[in-house]
Amino acid sequence: MKIGFIGLGIMGKPMARNLMKAGHTVIVYDIVKENTEVMVEEGASERNSAREVAEECKVIITVLPNSPHVRAAVMGKNGVLEGASAGSILIDMSSIAPQVSKEISEACEKQGIEMLDAPVSGGEPKAIDGTLSIMVGGKEEVFKQVYDILMAMGGSAVYCGEIGAGNTTKLANQIIVALNIAAVSEAFMLSTKAGVDPDKVFNAIKGGLAGSTVMNAKIPMIMERNFKPGFKIDLHIKDLNNALDTGHEIGVPLPLTANVMEMLQKLHADGHGQEDHSAIAKYYEKIADVCVESER
Amino acid sequence: MKIGFIGLGIMGKPMARNLMKAGHTVIVYDIVKENTEVMVEEGASERNSAREVAEECKVIITVLPNSPHVRAAVMGKNGVLEGASAGSILIDMSSIAPQVSKEISEACEKQGIEMLDAPVSGGEPKAIDGTLSIMVGGKEEVFKQVYDILMAMGGSAVYCGEIGAGNTTKLANQIIVALNIAAVSEAFMLSTKAGVDPDKVFNAIKGGLAGSTVMNAKIPMIMERNFKPGFKIDLHIKDLNNALDTGHEIGVPLPLTANVMEMLQKLHADGHGQEDHSAIAKYYEKIADVCVESER
Repeated sequence: MKIGFIGLGIMGKPMARNLMKAGHTVIVYDIVKENTEVMVEEGASERNSAREVAEECKVIITVLPNSPHVRAAVMGKNGVLEGASAGSILIDMSSIAPQVSKEISEACEKQGIEMLDAPVSGGEPKAIDGTLSIMVGGKEEVFKQVYDILMAMGGSAVYCGEIGAGNTTKLANQIIVALNIAAVSEAFMLSTKAGVDPDKVFNAIKGGLAGSTVMNAKIPMIMERNFKPGFKIDLHIKDLNNALDTGHEIGVPLPLTANVMEMLQKLHADGHGQEDHSAIAKYYEKIADVCVESER
Repeated sequence: MKIGFIGLGIMGKPMARNLMKAGHTVIVYDIVKENTEVMVEEGASERNSAREVAEECKVIITVLPNSPHVRAAVMGKNGVLEGASAGSILIDMSSIAPQVSKEISEACEKQGIEMLDAPVSGGEPKAIDGTLSIMVGGKEEVFKQVYDILMAMGGSAVYCGEIGAGNTTKLANQIIVALNIAAVSEAFMLSTKAGVDPDKVFNAIKGGLAGSTVMNAKIPMIMERNFKPGFKIDLHIKDLNNALDTGHEIGVPLPLTANVMEMLQKLHADGHGQEDHSAIAKYYEKIADVCVESER
């Protein structure tokens, strides 16, 4: 079918490609002309605004950096809502604040447009492979209607609840990932400074209750001093900002998240914003004057 | 062979039993008379002090609550060092501060006695099964000498480095476990208060980077409101105290550990000290006035 695709960045491009591979006609728009040109060369059609894309497509996907971009692309001048007709479905696959998903959904509803929030995890590699984990909020019948479209881009698409639930789930995910990285960093800094080879600690504890996907993925990177992203510090700052904003709004204090946010901000200020989030270890190494490097 | 065993609490009893099952003669002492009586009924021999045990055994194992107890049992009046002869091996399997392991080891060394620190993880069930994870510090040749003895009680015995390295590794483990429990609690409190069923969040994220042994073990317990230990809040307080003391001593600040310690202390003060450490979720539920309970 004809699918509108707005936002062709690092994530959007491979996701749009997987829709084309699945046989869909993809109509694209991005404020960066180079991004649309690449996709047009590969067979997509280009329009001059989100409005024009929405005029033509019954399903419109947005993959944008953060809440203000989605708000602007949907509710702003020449946005989706100026072009879309009743019965269309907007799938916002950006990672934004759940309360903004709700706000945009309410605006859509007034025009008879359905909306899902469907943020993804897995990063660029899984976007390319079409194996993203997609967390979806909105009406369950709408989710079922577009399930196949989502599965052209994802390895799983899980229905999480009403609108905003996708982004809420994503925030929970991002909180845990950030805190688990900080947890292994804090623990390995102590043991390393105490003189124990991190490699030995890793092997001794990874199979027990302390084990985690984060430990398996990040401790070897940290020991090898490889901080190539992966997932960038600056993006994690964005996500934790949305988590903290959400917490403030609904009355949930997030003491550890706030603490790790300060670490991320310091890393950003020190020029590590484009490094993998495992560079949280560097924050600790700096304050404890130790390097978690394998003796091997 | 003849093995001395001092400390027959919840952990010590099944560990001593596994030594007997492996064919060793076990000579026991505990300040609690009832503990030794149980073991004598099962075929152990009893002595009246740690000194008497040490006079008779070339290998002496201690499994005691914390640093002061080990210090007293080894270095105190009628302690191991009053009875042990040169060439004996002391294996302290208690979880204590690594700096105390070093201190006791130095006292042992003066009498020609070897010492290993060999704390365990896995709790009572794995002590019973003989599948404890044992983390060992000390001389590697001494570790090799007693490896078979350790493996009568453990599923693994990992050499971590010089004396204290076992307890340092254990502290790293306990920091990560505590912080990972707090991480899932903080995240699930946010998503639950935002109205998303924790069961859906769990299923959506457990397979990704946020996944952990803690999440798989504890989130179902929390959703079922089952806080039966497992590992008690009060014991985790003891371990984090040792971690913080160690950090202060070697100049490693542990900001998140300190934060979670405050949560544990509040839970202890509110009468939850004997509950499983997954009750950290209750701290969050109290401050956010929400209950992370499955809708199922």
